[in-house]
Amino acid sequence: MSRDSRYLEDLLHHDIPLTRALGLRVEQWENHELRVKVPLQANINHKSSMFGGSLYCASVLAGWGWMHLRLREAGIDDGHIVIHEGQIEYPLPVVDDAIAICSAPSDEAWERFEAIYRRRGRSRVTLHSRILAADGRDAVRFTGQFVLHK
Amino acid sequence: MSRDSRYLEDLLHHDIPLTRALGLRVEQWENHELRVKVPLQANINHKSSMFGGSLYCASVLAGWGWMHLRLREAGIDDGHIVIHEGQIEYPLPVVDDAIAICSAPSDEAWERFEAIYRRRGRSRVTLHSRILAADGRDAVRFTGQFVLHK
Repeated sequence: MSRDSRYLEDLLHHDIPLTRALGLRVEQWENHELRVKVPLQANINHKSSMFGGSLYCASVLAGWGWMHLRLREAGIDDGHIVIHEGQIEYPLPVVDDAIAICSAPSDEAWERFEAIYRRRGRSRVTLHSRILAADGRDAVRFTGQFVLHK
Repeated sequence: MSRDSRYLEDLLHHDIPLTRALGLRVEQWENHELRVKVPLQANINHKSSMFGGSLYCASVLAGWGWMHLRLREAGIDDGHIVIHEGQIEYPLPVVDDAIAICSAPSDEAWERFEAIYRRRGRSRVTLHSRILAADGRDAVRFTGQFVLHK
């Protein structure tokens, strides 16, 4: 586990205690892509698949964690990250541990977001997370509008 | 606590163990409106407000529970309820225990949903849940597309 992953996992477990009940682990932060994992067992439903609320939590935490690490890298440490809106689709059930993958927005979108924040102290960016089924198809697609404000 | 509320709470705590970690309670089922409560303490974040993932869980469980009780009343007991898509907005932070309120869709929408299910064994309905701030304004607005299938 890398130092950044450990740092983020400790932060989440401390700041949002429910992440411990979810069994959330930070798996990887590499090339501006964040992977967080939640185990099936702690998040199971009566169909032996993963509860839709847990899948949302994993997805939104992948987005929140992505923002946190990316801002730290950009040297921005005076902001508060808030989820403003979220949209989730569940095309397939998740029947195993779930890894939520949050990818970077386009460079252009990120640069615009950063510039607006530096100018106005408030900015908004859209992030996408996915959870894949064993065969590589999307099981969950999440879109979140995150706001950073001073 | 009414018999229906107790029945649903036991069912959720048994079928979706995370509901116990969320501290979820079923408060009221009356006039086709369901109220479920989650306490701030178990769902707090570093801002002393409620974690957005917990607010989603309360909202989606209000919808799922609404479907379950309404179907039981309609005498439909051979279906599986699945959340297919969810959209959530967070206009205000939640700084106290949260009550998610799921209301009935229009009679027309429900009748169409039931008729299609009885004919085809699969149907879809849109439900809305809200969480109110202390002053009565919306703190959370949730829309879920639920599918019932045989």
